[in-house]
Amino acid sequence: EEDSRGSSTNHKDGDENAQLALEKIVGIQHEIDSLNEQASEEILHVEQKYNQLRKPHYQKRAKLAQEIPEFWFTTLTNHPAISQLLNEEDEQALIYLENLTVDEFEDVKSGYKISMHFRPNPYFENAVLLKELTLDVSGDSTITGTDIKWKPNRDLTKQSDVEFKGRKRPLEEVPSFFCWFNDTNGNESDEIAETIKDEIWPNPLQFFLHGEVSVDEGEEEED
Amino acid sequence: EEDSRGSSTNHKDGDENAQLALEKIVGIQHEIDSLNEQASEEILHVEQKYNQLRKPHYQKRAKLAQEIPEFWFTTLTNHPAISQLLNEEDEQALIYLENLTVDEFEDVKSGYKISMHFRPNPYFENAVLLKELTLDVSGDSTITGTDIKWKPNRDLTKQSDVEFKGRKRPLEEVPSFFCWFNDTNGNESDEIAETIKDEIWPNPLQFFLHGEVSVDEGEEEED
Ligand SMILES: [Ca+2]
Ligand SMILES: [Ca+2]
Ligand SMILES: [Mg+2]
Ligand SMILES: [Mg+2]
Repeated sequence: EEDSRGSSTNHKDGDENAQLALEKIVGIQHEIDSLNEQASEEILHVEQKYNQLRKPHYQKRAKLAQEIPEFWFTTLTNHPAISQLLNEEDEQALIYLENLTVDEFEDVKSGYKISMHFRPNPYFENAVLLKELTLDVSGDSTITGTDIKWKPNRDLTKQSDVEFKGRKRPLEEVPSFFCWFNDTNGNESDEIAETIKDEIWPNPLQFFLHGEVSVDEGEEEED
Repeated sequence: EEDSRGSSTNHKDGDENAQLALEKIVGIQHEIDSLNEQASEEILHVEQKYNQLRKPHYQKRAKLAQEIPEFWFTTLTNHPAISQLLNEEDEQALIYLENLTVDEFEDVKSGYKISMHFRPNPYFENAVLLKELTLDVSGDSTITGTDIKWKPNRDLTKQSDVEFKGRKRPLEEVPSFFCWFNDTNGNESDEIAETIKDEIWPNPLQFFLHGEVSVDEGEEEED
């Protein structure tokens, strides 16, 4: 039994029929692939449109959050996964977090940037700490993070060097959350970044209010 | 320090400002949630539209595939993951597979059905074996599978009972692929179903052609 695929014969035998059918399936596959690309493009446009529509709401939210003491600190420390990654000193530093934003790149699919804005604080000089994830066309990610300018003896990521309020950090404590800004290994997924982008950013309120008295969701009194 | 959230005071102190800001954030969250729902709806409509557009291509493909000997058998046995799940006798039975289809339910999000159409064969009476996955609103899945009517002494899922071509099935052989139709545990994801739906169905050709000579992708000669 000779496999005649790819060879040509002059009579329409079964192999020739099969070969023609196969070539037609190749053509059909191109049409399916092209429809899939069109579908992806349309979905991307929908996502871009709604990103624009959500933006002013996020901006209003950011302003209002600054009128609420420790809004982002409370949100992060109430989040079930993030709270596990914060040691005592991380929490002391995160009290100075005054704004947190997630910005998807314009084309949505190529990545996003997480910005954490801090008030002047005893730990580091930076006003903003960034974590940025860029996806290339093949789906590989490049991660960059701000190089934190720690104040003298305040580097929370260097456990052995640091004393805090006169006592050594207990050995059983978790590594500092701020190590995350140094963790730029694009081979693994950045779970902290994904949690912030997919859980906290779309609805920080659910974590901020966790364990609080319920909020009156009725009309706002402006008087 | 009393937490005055949820209580009302008559002067606009910091707590009252924070309370008003919080109530406004609640309102903004409702608007964000509503935009998210609209975005999901629009994306769903795009997916439904393209499901309809792809359908005639899949139907043409199904007809053409039947002109190619062992198209689906070759596709499945060439797939790197599926091939691992096929023992020798499974392959003997899958030679009779003449069509394979995946149908997403109209609303796309509620589930899909995989149909495997068989020519008359020495193993079972059914012309079609189905696996159906239904997702309810809370995301839980219900899985149903065809109860295969095996011919006498041909039940491939009962290893100990079966002899094949006069010899016992070796103990080290993998369990039968056909056990998949009985495996309706909705708590786990159905990885075989997902592989068929997400990898094989959109492009069976890439597996069918795996290791074959390259196909002329130029114009089809109709003469
Ligand atoms: Ca009120
Ligand atoms: Ca040709
Ligand atoms: Mg905000
Ligand atoms: Mg087909």
